[in-house]
Amino acid sequence: MNEVGFLGLGIMGKAMAMNLQNNGFNVTVWNRSQSKCDELVKHGISIGESPAAVIGKCKYTIAMLSDPEAALSVVFGKAGVLEEICNGKGYIDMSTVDAETSKKISEAIKSKGGCFLEAPVSGSKKPAEDGQLIILAAGEKALYDEMLPAFNVLGKKSYFLGLVGNGAKMKIVVNMIMGSMMNALSEGLELADRSGLDCHELLDVLDLGAIANPMFKLKGPAMIKNSYPPAFPLKHQQKDMRLALALGDQNAISMPVAAAANEAFKKARSMGFGDLDFSAVHESVRRYK
Amino acid sequence: MNEVGFLGLGIMGKAMAMNLQNNGFNVTVWNRSQSKCDELVKHGISIGESPAAVIGKCKYTIAMLSDPEAALSVVFGKAGVLEEICNGKGYIDMSTVDAETSKKISEAIKSKGGCFLEAPVSGSKKPAEDGQLIILAAGEKALYDEMLPAFNVLGKKSYFLGLVGNGAKMKIVVNMIMGSMMNALSEGLELADRSGLDCHELLDVLDLGAIANPMFKLKGPAMIKNSYPPAFPLKHQQKDMRLALALGDQNAISMPVAAAANEAFKKARSMGFGDLDFSAVHESVRRYK
Amino acid sequence: MNEVGFLGLGIMGKAMAMNLQNNGFNVTVWNRSQSKCDELVKHGISIGESPAAVIGKCKYTIAMLSDPEAALSVVFGKAGVLEEICNGKGYIDMSTVDAETSKKISEAIKSKGGCFLEAPVSGSKKPAEDGQLIILAAGEKALYDEMLPAFNVLGKKSYFLGLVGNGAKMKIVVNMIMGSMMNALSEGLELADRSGLDCHELLDVLDLGAIANPMFKLKGPAMIKNSYPPAFPLKHQQKDMRLALALGDQNAISMPVAAAANEAFKKARSMGFGDLDFSAVHESVRRYK
Amino acid sequence: MNEVGFLGLGIMGKAMAMNLQNNGFNVTVWNRSQSKCDELVKHGISIGESPAAVIGKCKYTIAMLSDPEAALSVVFGKAGVLEEICNGKGYIDMSTVDAETSKKISEAIKSKGGCFLEAPVSGSKKPAEDGQLIILAAGEKALYDEMLPAFNVLGKKSYFLGLVGNGAKMKIVVNMIMGSMMNALSEGLELADRSGLDCHELLDVLDLGAIANPMFKLKGPAMIKNSYPPAFPLKHQQKDMRLALALGDQNAISMPVAAAANEAFKKARSMGFGDLDFSAVHESVRRYK
Repeated sequence: MNEVGFLGLGIMGKAMAMNLQNNGFNVTVWNRSQSKCDELVKHGISIGESPAAVIGKCKYTIAMLSDPEAALSVVFGKAGVLEEICNGKGYIDMSTVDAETSKKISEAIKSKGGCFLEAPVSGSKKPAEDGQLIILAAGEKALYDEMLPAFNVLGKKSYFLGLVGNGAKMKIVVNMIMGSMMNALSEGLELADRSGLDCHELLDVLDLGAIANPMFKLKGPAMIKNSYPPAFPLKHQQKDMRLALALGDQNAISMPVAAAANEAFKKARSMGFGDLDFSAVHESVRRYK
Repeated sequence: MNEVGFLGLGIMGKAMAMNLQNNGFNVTVWNRSQSKCDELVKHGISIGESPAAVIGKCKYTIAMLSDPEAALSVVFGKAGVLEEICNGKGYIDMSTVDAETSKKISEAIKSKGGCFLEAPVSGSKKPAEDGQLIILAAGEKALYDEMLPAFNVLGKKSYFLGLVGNGAKMKIVVNMIMGSMMNALSEGLELADRSGLDCHELLDVLDLGAIANPMFKLKGPAMIKNSYPPAFPLKHQQKDMRLALALGDQNAISMPVAAAANEAFKKARSMGFGDLDFSAVHESVRRYK
Repeated sequence: MNEVGFLGLGIMGKAMAMNLQNNGFNVTVWNRSQSKCDELVKHGISIGESPAAVIGKCKYTIAMLSDPEAALSVVFGKAGVLEEICNGKGYIDMSTVDAETSKKISEAIKSKGGCFLEAPVSGSKKPAEDGQLIILAAGEKALYDEMLPAFNVLGKKSYFLGLVGNGAKMKIVVNMIMGSMMNALSEGLELADRSGLDCHELLDVLDLGAIANPMFKLKGPAMIKNSYPPAFPLKHQQKDMRLALALGDQNAISMPVAAAANEAFKKARSMGFGDLDFSAVHESVRRYK
Repeated sequence: MNEVGFLGLGIMGKAMAMNLQNNGFNVTVWNRSQSKCDELVKHGISIGESPAAVIGKCKYTIAMLSDPEAALSVVFGKAGVLEEICNGKGYIDMSTVDAETSKKISEAIKSKGGCFLEAPVSGSKKPAEDGQLIILAAGEKALYDEMLPAFNVLGKKSYFLGLVGNGAKMKIVVNMIMGSMMNALSEGLELADRSGLDCHELLDVLDLGAIANPMFKLKGPAMIKNSYPPAFPLKHQQKDMRLALALGDQNAISMPVAAAANEAFKKARSMGFGDLDFSAVHESVRRYK
C-alpha cells in the first residue's frame, strides 16, 4: 500500500501527510485551498484536483477534515469521494465527527462497494508532527489491518474498537474527561492565587503527585500568565462536551460535573474566547474585581 | 536531631514513624490507643505515656492525627502538648486540618515559647510507607530547615510555603482538583460503558494521552469492577471539597465544577458510601436501571 | 370559521377538540388510533379518515401532536397534510416542537400555498379542559387574527410572537424556568425533611411569601408523599430542558442552574422515573440511607 | 405586654419598631448608631442607652440585627443583653442567623433564667413596613404565646416550629428555594433576550401560568433594565445559600441545583455586585460579547 491519498491539510493533516511521505508512502493530497498543497510538492507529494480524483488514483485514501460539515461535503459534494469510490478501494476518515455523521458516511461508501474505517485520533499538533497520535479506529476490521503500516507511522498506538461510531464515541468520552480536568485546574489555579499561594508551586506539587499529567504540566504555566495560544480551540472542546452530554442523554446517564464544565466553556465562549485554546476556560473562573 | 517524638499512629503515622526509626532517628511515640504503640517497641521505638510526656522528652515532635478535632485535642487536652512545650522545642503538625485550626494551634504553641510548623502531606498509605510523600510546610522557616533531615526521610520533596495556613490551603487546593478529576473519570467510565465501549480500552487510551495520570491508572480498573477499597475515604475527600469551596467563598471565587463534584460526593455519602474510597463517587453516576 | 379540523386526540387534544365543539365550532377530527375518535362522535364531532382528508374538508386545521416526530409525520407522511393543503387553507400546529421542526413544517405548508401558524401552549390537562391555556403563536399574523375566536375558546390568553420558531422558543424558555423551580422545590423539601422540619409547614410558608406559585401549591403535597401521578411526564420535561440548553448553546449563553437541573432530571430518568410526573425529580434528591 | 424593647434599627427593624409603637405598644429602642434612634423620638418611642438598659426596663425585648456577629455581640458584649436578662424576662431574636448562633444565644439567655425565642422572618422592606411579615418562631412555646399580640402587628402569619434552630433552618430553606428560582429567572430572561424573544412578553406569559409568583412580577421588569436596587443584598442571599448547603452537608443531602445557584451568586460577588439586590445574579448570566 505505497500509494495513499490524503484529503485535508489543516494543522493536523499537513503533519500527517508529511509523515507518511517521509516514511515510504507515495502521497497524493487534496485540500480545499490549493495553496496548502503547493507547499508539499517539493517534498515529492502529488496533488489531486478533487476528492474524486484522489480516490480514483489511490487504493486507500485518508481524510482529516475540520468538522462534520467538511467531512460530509468532501464525501457527498461535487467531485466528491462517492463519485469514484468502488469495490476494492478503502476510505479512512480520521476527522473528529459525531457517531451519526460517521455512520452516514459509512453507509454511503459501502453502498458504492467501498470499504470504510473511521479513525479519529487523540492528540493535537505536536503528536501529529511526531507520529505519536493515538488512533481510535472502528468499522471494517480487514481495512484496519491493511492500514496498520500507515497507522504505525502516524501514531504510537492504534485501537480497533468495533462498529462504526465507536471511534467517535471513544474520542468524545476522552475529551469530556479532559474538559472537566481543565476546569478543575482552572478553578484550582484561581483559588490558589486568590488565597495567597504561589501558582507555580501548585503546579510543582501537582506534578509530583497522583494526579500529575502532561496536560497540567504543558498548559499550566501559560494559564498562570493568562496566555492561551490555540492548540485545541475552546469552541471545539465545548462542542465535544456537548456531544458527550448528548450521548449521555441518549443513554440516561447523569453527568453533573461534565455539565458544569460545559457551562463554564460556554461562559468563556460568551466572553469571546471561543477561538483561543480551551485552557482559556480559566478566564471564566477568574475574579475580575 | 536524632531524638524525635511522634504523635498518632494511624495508617499514615505508623508508616512514617517506622521510616524515621529505620533511617537513623530515635523515635518516641504516643497514640490514643496504646496497642498500636506496642507493635513498634520491637523495632526499637520508645513509648511516651501522653503527648505532654513525648514533648517533654524530645526537642522536636511530629503529629499525624486524623482530623481537626484530634489535632486540637492533642494540643489543648489534658496532658497535652501545651503542658510541656517551651522555648527551644519544635512542634510539627503534619495532619490535614483547615487553616483556622492550624492558626489556633500555632498561636498556642508560640504563646508558650515553642516553635510551630504545619506540614500536611500529599500522598496516602503507599507513599507514606515508601517515604515518597510530598510535604507542604508553612510556619517558622528556621524550624523547617531543622526538620529537613526528617522530611527527606518521609518524603520525596518538601515545600516551605510561607505563613501558617498556606500548607493547609495548598493541600485542599490539590485535593479539590483531585476530587473533580475523580468525578470526571467516573462519568467517563459510565458513559463509555453505557455507550457500548470497553472501559478497559478507555483506561488504556487515557493512559497514553495528555491526561494520563497515576490515579486513573491505579484506581480505574477497580472502579470498573465497582470495587472501592478505602485508601482515602470518600467522606474525607468530601470534607476537603467543602473546605476548598469555603475558601473560595471567602475569596469570592466561583467554582462551579468543584461545587458539582462536591454534590456528587455528597450524593455518594447519602447512598451510604462515605467510608469507602473516594473513587466510590462512581456509584453516584451509575445508572441502576 | 365554523368548520375546524383537529389532528391528534391525546390528553390535551381531546379536551381542546371538545371545547371547540361545545363552543360553536363544527369539528372534524383525525387520530392515529381510530378508537379515540369514536368516543367523540356522540358529541357531534365528525371523523376524517386521514390528515389529508381533514385538510381537504376544512379551511382551518389545528394539530396537537405528541412530539416532533409525530408532528412531521402527520404533515409529510402518506395521506398527510401536504397532500391537500393549498391556497386559502390554514394549518395551525399547537404541538410542542423545537424551532427547527416548526420551520420545516412552515416551509412545506407555504410551498403549497397554505398559511401556517405555530401555536404551542403553556398549561397541561386541566387548563386544556377548562379552556385556560396560554397560547404562544408565531408565523402568519393574518392567520393568527382569523384564529382568535378559536384561541379564545381554547385559552385564557394568546400571544402573537412574530416569526415562526418564536412560539417554540418561548415555550421552552418557560419550561426551562419551570424545571429549575421544580428542582429547587425538591431540594428544599428534602432538606427540610432531613433537618427536622415539617414539609407541610414549609409549603405553607412558601405559599404566603414572595415565591408563592400555583405549581408548588398543587404538586408539593403529593411530592411529600413521594407520589407523582403524571400530568407532565418527566421525560418530556427533560427533553425541554435539553432543547433550552441547546438554544443557549447556539447563542453562547451559559446556564449553569438549568444544566444542573437537567442532569437531575436525567438522574431521575436513569432511576426509571421518566414516565412519572416531572415532580419525580424529587426522587433524585432523596437520601435513601 | 405594652412595654416592648427593640434592639436594631436597620431597614427592617425601624419599620417594625414603628409598627409596634403605632399599634398600641410602648417601645424602647437601642441602636448601635444613636442617630437612628433620635428620628423615632418624635413618634413617642423611648431610647435605651445600651442593650442591657433596654432589657432592664422591659419585660420583653425583640432584636432585629444584621448578621450572626451582630446578634452575638449584642447579647455577649459589654452592656449586653446578658447583663440584665433574668427570670421573668423574654428575649426574642428576629434576626436571620444560623441554627448554631441561635442555640448559643438561647443557652446563654436560659442560663441567666430568661426565656428565649428565635423568630426570623420571611419578607423584606415592604412587608416589614406593612406588617405583612411571615414569622418563623421556635424555642419556648409559652413566650411565643405571650408574643402573639406583637407578632400579629408585625406579620400576617406566625408559625411556632418547635426547638430553637428550627426557625433559622426554615428561613434558610425558603431562601435557598428563592435563590435557585432567581437564577432560573435570570437564565430565562437572558436566553429569551438572546433568542430574539421579548422579555416583557416572557414575564407576561410567566405571570399567567403555573409558576406565576410575586417575586418574578416584582423584580423581573427591573432586571430587564439591568437595574438591581438593593431590597435583599446579594451577599446576604449568597450567605443563606451557603448556610443551606452546609445544612445539607450535615445531613448528607446532595443539592446540585442550589450548589450551581450558589456558585452563580459567588460569580456575581466576584464581579463586584455583592451589595446590589440579589436579582443582580442576572449579571453573572449575561453575555457581554
